[in-house]
Amino acid sequence: MEIRENDLIKRLKRFEQKSGRVIRGIGDDGAVVDMPGGRYVFVQDALVEHIHFEFSFMDTFSIGKKSIYVNVSDILSMGADPLYFLVTIGIPWNISYKKILDLYKGMRRAALEFNITLLGGDTVETKGDFFIDVSMVGILKKDTYLGRNTAKTGDFIGVTEWLGESAEGLYRLQNNMIPKKPCRYIKRYREPKPPYNIWKELMKRDITNAMMDVSDGLIIDLERMMIESKKGAVIHVEDIPVPKTLKKEGREHLAFSGGEDYQLLFTFGEDKLVDFNEMKKEGFNVSLIGKVVRGKGVKILKNGKEITISSKGYEHFGDNT
Amino acid sequence: MEIRENDLIKRLKRFEQKSGRVIRGIGDDGAVVDMPGGRYVFVQDALVEHIHFEFSFMDTFSIGKKSIYVNVSDILSMGADPLYFLVTIGIPWNISYKKILDLYKGMRRAALEFNITLLGGDTVETKGDFFIDVSMVGILKKDTYLGRNTAKTGDFIGVTEWLGESAEGLYRLQNNMIPKKPCRYIKRYREPKPPYNIWKELMKRDITNAMMDVSDGLIIDLERMMIESKKGAVIHVEDIPVPKTLKKEGREHLAFSGGEDYQLLFTFGEDKLVDFNEMKKEGFNVSLIGKVVRGKGVKILKNGKEITISSKGYEHFGDNT
Repeated sequence: MEIRENDLIKRLKRFEQKSGRVIRGIGDDGAVVDMPGGRYVFVQDALVEHIHFEFSFMDTFSIGKKSIYVNVSDILSMGADPLYFLVTIGIPWNISYKKILDLYKGMRRAALEFNITLLGGDTVETKGDFFIDVSMVGILKKDTYLGRNTAKTGDFIGVTEWLGESAEGLYRLQNNMIPKKPCRYIKRYREPKPPYNIWKELMKRDITNAMMDVSDGLIIDLERMMIESKKGAVIHVEDIPVPKTLKKEGREHLAFSGGEDYQLLFTFGEDKLVDFNEMKKEGFNVSLIGKVVRGKGVKILKNGKEITISSKGYEHFGDNT
Repeated sequence: MEIRENDLIKRLKRFEQKSGRVIRGIGDDGAVVDMPGGRYVFVQDALVEHIHFEFSFMDTFSIGKKSIYVNVSDILSMGADPLYFLVTIGIPWNISYKKILDLYKGMRRAALEFNITLLGGDTVETKGDFFIDVSMVGILKKDTYLGRNTAKTGDFIGVTEWLGESAEGLYRLQNNMIPKKPCRYIKRYREPKPPYNIWKELMKRDITNAMMDVSDGLIIDLERMMIESKKGAVIHVEDIPVPKTLKKEGREHLAFSGGEDYQLLFTFGEDKLVDFNEMKKEGFNVSLIGKVVRGKGVKILKNGKEITISSKGYEHFGDNT
């Protein structure tokens, strides 16, 4: 599906009508449109049963929250504040009414956390699977958006909080390692709340040049940012924020290739390093993991030596043919 | 589903956060939001396989067009010009790539007709059925929206073009009455293009007080408008724009209870009657079908006598117990 989707996006770009008011269209976390009174960001993201979740791993309350979080994450990534959303839910005949209400309760809880308002949408019956599709609009904080295409040579690369938590959560659910009280990993998988407070501080200090959310995995997402920015990246394994448990249990690779963390990946100029370090001192959980360079691709260094990351872990560069 | 959906909408209204900027929220064709620079209308409507269409009756090109039309229809109904849209498509594994491209071609064709721009969205695989979910934003033509709740006592009730065409088209498809070249009815069912030119003229002349699109059937939709406006309506069967063929073949009832025509139902004050009649003379296909009165419900008169409409046709009032 990945290849087909990339191909589709390319074709879609051709379909896209040119409009002077669309500042950033298909191919980023969201689209940026110049409208009278402000620059708005539009996103739309769906969660589908059997593809994005299983009811055995997640209840509808969490699905409701997550459907909001993944869209808020895209809005924040563009440098915009979320404002309003609409939702279509596709309900199979055999789902209980209580579960649907729980879904809305979850959405509402998440919406309150970001002070966003439900405007409406659609409720449809399906013969097959359950789905929830949220569209959201936000307003840019500044005149310029933070895209995947705005990283500059020499920029530092930063990331928020922890990576691999969500993938570890899914691993634990799939392997029946489920404690009575959900651990931080399962919680992150079910309800990946975007790091709103860190984002606000980054915005306030005007630190970032480029930004995206880590939805498919650090390496693949950083590669995408570098392709869009026509740059390369060098990152240091030692500096990636990997939870200790993952290292201890040999699942460190989940921090590199595991998806659905919905942390923010961003770049910033050298002149903002003081601000960045001040944030760290003030307790904001941000990590400096590398630098943007001329060229292309993502070079991964461990103890100064280049390595490659496979889905099962990393190997020294060249081992992986 | 109808009852569950109405119940859900009621509960949703309670969930809705109060915001001074939301002028009209859940319960109309679209939501109206006061944003810096203008008043915007947001809508989101999905088409789902087996519920809204069957591939045996419709190709993906038409589905693409229809997915745009039903959302444009909601935007126009609120008195707004459509601007931008996003789309999520849920694609089962067994659908051909050509069919997906045809879907986008259909969307693009319809988008060009209304000069609207695709901003992005989501492409997801499904294990079950195909679905397409479009969200759209438009901008109000005037300061005030045209809702379901703005009909006034004494208003005339008007409707655009023909009613029952789409239901007749579905009837013909279901009964294998399919000509080589699609007839107007099957065409209306597959590609119900909103009456944009008539709408523009209605807007230009500032004729309408209330407006909605006829998506579920004239009587049920007019009832909904009257409930929201806290008024009643009297309509005359003789004045409903029913295609001659439907009368001849005994399916006149499809004009009253058949859905998916996506014609515009509107009310206007007596002071606008001259304008309305001028439009007719200029060739715009609009019909005056009744009046808004104090009270509630929809009273249907035939030759001056009250009748009721069942799904199979109409009977004299009181016959239908």
